[in-house]
Amino acid sequence: MTYQAPVKDMLFVLNHLAGLRQVAALPGFEEATPDTAQAVLEESAHFAAEVLAPLNHPADREPSAWRDGAVTTAPGFKQAFRQYTEAGWQGMSHPVEYGGQGLPGLIGSPCSEMLNAANLSFALCPLLTNGAIEALLTAGSPELKKRFIGPMISGQWTGTMNLTEPQAGSDLAMIRTRAQPVGDGTYRLSGTKIFITYGDHDLTENILHLVLARLPDAPEGVKGISLFLVPKFLVNEDGTLGVRNDVTCVSIEHKLGIKASPTATLQFGDAGGALGYLVGQENRGLDAMFIMMNAARYAVGVQGIAIADRAYQHALAYAAERVQSRPVDGSSREAVPIIQHPDVRRMLGTMRALTEAGRALAYVTAGHADLAHASPDADARKRHLAIQEFLVPIVKGWCTEMSIDVASLGVQVHGGMGFIEETGAAQYYRDARILTIYEGTTAIQANDLIGRKTLRDGGAVAQALLEAIRQTETELESRSEPAANLVLKPLRQARLALANVVDFVLANAAGAPNAVFGSAVPYLLLAGTTLAGWQMARALLASLEHQQEDPEFHQAKIATVQCYALHKLTQAPGLAAVVLGSKEYEVQP
Amino acid sequence: MTYQAPVKDMLFVLNHLAGLRQVAALPGFEEATPDTAQAVLEESAHFAAEVLAPLNHPADREPSAWRDGAVTTAPGFKQAFRQYTEAGWQGMSHPVEYGGQGLPGLIGSPCSEMLNAANLSFALCPLLTNGAIEALLTAGSPELKKRFIGPMISGQWTGTMNLTEPQAGSDLAMIRTRAQPVGDGTYRLSGTKIFITYGDHDLTENILHLVLARLPDAPEGVKGISLFLVPKFLVNEDGTLGVRNDVTCVSIEHKLGIKASPTATLQFGDAGGALGYLVGQENRGLDAMFIMMNAARYAVGVQGIAIADRAYQHALAYAAERVQSRPVDGSSREAVPIIQHPDVRRMLGTMRALTEAGRALAYVTAGHADLAHASPDADARKRHLAIQEFLVPIVKGWCTEMSIDVASLGVQVHGGMGFIEETGAAQYYRDARILTIYEGTTAIQANDLIGRKTLRDGGAVAQALLEAIRQTETELESRSEPAANLVLKPLRQARLALANVVDFVLANAAGAPNAVFGSAVPYLLLAGTTLAGWQMARALLASLEHQQEDPEFHQAKIATVQCYALHKLTQAPGLAAVVLGSKEYEVQP
Repeated sequence: MTYQAPVKDMLFVLNHLAGLRQVAALPGFEEATPDTAQAVLEESAHFAAEVLAPLNHPADREPSAWRDGAVTTAPGFKQAFRQYTEAGWQGMSHPVEYGGQGLPGLIGSPCSEMLNAANLSFALCPLLTNGAIEALLTAGSPELKKRFIGPMISGQWTGTMNLTEPQAGSDLAMIRTRAQPVGDGTYRLSGTKIFITYGDHDLTENILHLVLARLPDAPEGVKGISLFLVPKFLVNEDGTLGVRNDVTCVSIEHKLGIKASPTATLQFGDAGGALGYLVGQENRGLDAMFIMMNAARYAVGVQGIAIADRAYQHALAYAAERVQSRPVDGSSREAVPIIQHPDVRRMLGTMRALTEAGRALAYVTAGHADLAHASPDADARKRHLAIQEFLVPIVKGWCTEMSIDVASLGVQVHGGMGFIEETGAAQYYRDARILTIYEGTTAIQANDLIGRKTLRDGGAVAQALLEAIRQTETELESRSEPAANLVLKPLRQARLALANVVDFVLANAAGAPNAVFGSAVPYLLLAGTTLAGWQMARALLASLEHQQEDPEFHQAKIATVQCYALHKLTQAPGLAAVVLGSKEYEVQP
Repeated sequence: MTYQAPVKDMLFVLNHLAGLRQVAALPGFEEATPDTAQAVLEESAHFAAEVLAPLNHPADREPSAWRDGAVTTAPGFKQAFRQYTEAGWQGMSHPVEYGGQGLPGLIGSPCSEMLNAANLSFALCPLLTNGAIEALLTAGSPELKKRFIGPMISGQWTGTMNLTEPQAGSDLAMIRTRAQPVGDGTYRLSGTKIFITYGDHDLTENILHLVLARLPDAPEGVKGISLFLVPKFLVNEDGTLGVRNDVTCVSIEHKLGIKASPTATLQFGDAGGALGYLVGQENRGLDAMFIMMNAARYAVGVQGIAIADRAYQHALAYAAERVQSRPVDGSSREAVPIIQHPDVRRMLGTMRALTEAGRALAYVTAGHADLAHASPDADARKRHLAIQEFLVPIVKGWCTEMSIDVASLGVQVHGGMGFIEETGAAQYYRDARILTIYEGTTAIQANDLIGRKTLRDGGAVAQALLEAIRQTETELESRSEPAANLVLKPLRQARLALANVVDFVLANAAGAPNAVFGSAVPYLLLAGTTLAGWQMARALLASLEHQQEDPEFHQAKIATVQCYALHKLTQAPGLAAVVLGSKEYEVQP
């Protein structure tokens, strides 16, 4: 079972929901026209289907392996990585001056989705490298940028993010890795980092580790953390590789999923200290890391959409082939393909609706990110940044939580065959399970949504989004088609539910923090359900508007929106009830 | 991490909710007093914790293996099986005349839960053997009973259920395995059966396969299926083993979970036909199989509760140990064990509440089964049988669906460690995933709930249960404690939601079958949520009544009920909205 990227669906979102035209009107993004987008997406889809997707299941069976301090990646990965970087995909959204293509993130998002859908384990290497590039672009000195960004974009080297330590997971304040200034502007690092994705591998000759550590005189807590670049091999002035640095991969993890992605424990400084370069200012490492993490969190949300779509495509193909039982409506005396059975339709329809809703929400967020970054108007930049920042924890939290549900439904569609590893459906169920954990658990996203994104501005962005939903409701009211009316009612209920919850959070976070933060995840899920549903309502309006152009495509879209409204928007009041009741009911572990 | 059976919680359900005293008043069950129940449960808990639980994780790492047609089970299983059967556990609920202990199913249920929580893969062997014993007791000739039941109860042999074939999963009408009469009363079977749990193993010297097959002149469809007993080794008149029968284990599956439970493909009749004995009447094999399946479906529901409790205990222990981050309410300047964080409390509280609610619902069902079986009054037997039959698909469907959610929450509580196989949390997430599939998928249960359990009696049992919930509401109203009032509101909403849905199903199943069966699973989940919530409300009343006797225990129970009300009963109206809207909205795959 291979994977075919849904290019048409993706372009629909870019053009009708996420504002590709506005993005293409920004200085620097003039080439990002709908035609360019289509050409890039088709090329990316081809690469994903031909090169990466076929490696996915074999790599799960024969994953990355560690021996004598070095990791050998799964069969085919090395060749695929060379093809990936030689075709320029790694540099797609990075600046032209470092060898990138300078395309907006909005076009990068569908390409990232395809990459992850085709091969989640493989995709993590480019994802982390993007994070390292972002960190250097944001906080690196001109010297560091010049020396280290280009080779990552070209695919000569890769990058990693080193945050977690055995005692410091969600709680970065507990980081203990030490950095000692040498006196020549460099540092010697020592400590243990765990869960380092692609912390060692054989895809490239060198790896650049971005490492959080403490200086000797650093204050306690998160305000005493600095960011360092620590190459696996030192790099000479002329860019050639020098000696091996004092960092070793002591093991990799035996994991539930993404088995082909090596998750390393790295030991720094066992032989005197690993040489590192300070990135940004001393004790301000978390600032740069947060920029990197925001990009990574968004990217993990896209991974959720990706794995959901892969699981959906897999289940759809099986359901069309597998013949079992006569239909309940008596329409055939013979057993039929199970895709004709109502419950299988419910499962597949739900899988598709959740995937498309997540995609719409994510790409819309990417559009705001591009506008926040490149808009010539400072007020516009600020406005779009605020919306982007509000949406990122929702994209991360909601799209990954739904991806587990979708992957689980994918197993269920397969029946007994879903539980057999050869079928492949089980791999998505295992792979998806990391997504709600890494780059900040769903609770961490939900706390961010409450603290930095709702309370800090007194609910201003939340209110603006609620008002925008209300306007979409008005548009739905103005349409005569039954579908618009059907979607209007649950959308309005969801919006009112979300409005009540935002008010509740604002009113009670200070006075009843345990109640509010104890229902932070239901708040995030409600926000995701409603905002993704809003995008689905906008999709409905666009499809009603354009249905003559491609009736079959748009009618399927309209049905998908209805499925979302019936199965998902209807759940919004229940989620609100959990939050609104949180002060009354006692919850004990 | 071992497992401690929650004997106190289990006894609470037996005594206060499931009617142990009424069961003990039945003829034949006089010894099933609360004291006996406690003694049996404590002994069972000891065995589960000491013998079976420690084998669970190692067996996942070194599972059953197939070589040259024979299966070797995981290390320790053979010894454990001997201990299990020698202690008499296999015969616990079976008739004394065949060597069993004749205890009611109500006492057997908690023991079954412990067995499965301790080691799901191991427990499947006794579970399937119980099914084979039930089938023989129900439909076997006196001769078959005499020869084959005793050795299964004593642990000398085990039993299997052979339904599935490559083209026949949920759809038993498509079974092709053939049985040819020899003329001496025996038959020769040929065909391929897949997904046969413990289809081969080394725990005992013989295995009795119960096999669905067709006679040469059989009608098409499910009315042409007969049931046969096919021993692995033929059995001589004196009970000693004869020659090997013509059935071979050609492979076992490589599965997502329950890896230590061998899932075999069995080939019958490659050398002329496997000798088999007819069980029950020709072409009536499904009748006996349904009795067996009903027992097995209930048992799989209990597996859901079991794995949920194991996942909960595992996560609870981790959360109490793992120190990370300061509390949001400012109550400490230091990082605290994560069990103090509100979202972790939400997750653990939900895990516990779902587990306890499922347990209450299941044991109550077991109580009805005992009354249906042994009540001296024919009307009472009929009444309890109808309730039991209504509840079985709900216990199976709802408890297994919730077990996947609970196991997934268990992984989430562990954060990154949850994704590492050594931790153990991931195994529950993998193991639980089979439960909504085997012994009839959730959709099969939901179709049964609609067709045989709701429509056939015009909703009579459903209405009786709704009326019983209303009476519990009246009891809640009469209490002055705030907890009673808090639980009353969402219980009433849930009951009204369920009542609307039952009316909708009755009114529309014939006219709009695709809408009704397309929301069959939401109907089942609503029924489960509401009926399990009703049991939680009854638990609340019992704890309010008895809280002086053991304040700590009952206060925790009251908090658990509140958690269920807040996080689960509140979702009932949303589930109803899906069913009630199913005629309006189009759902497409």
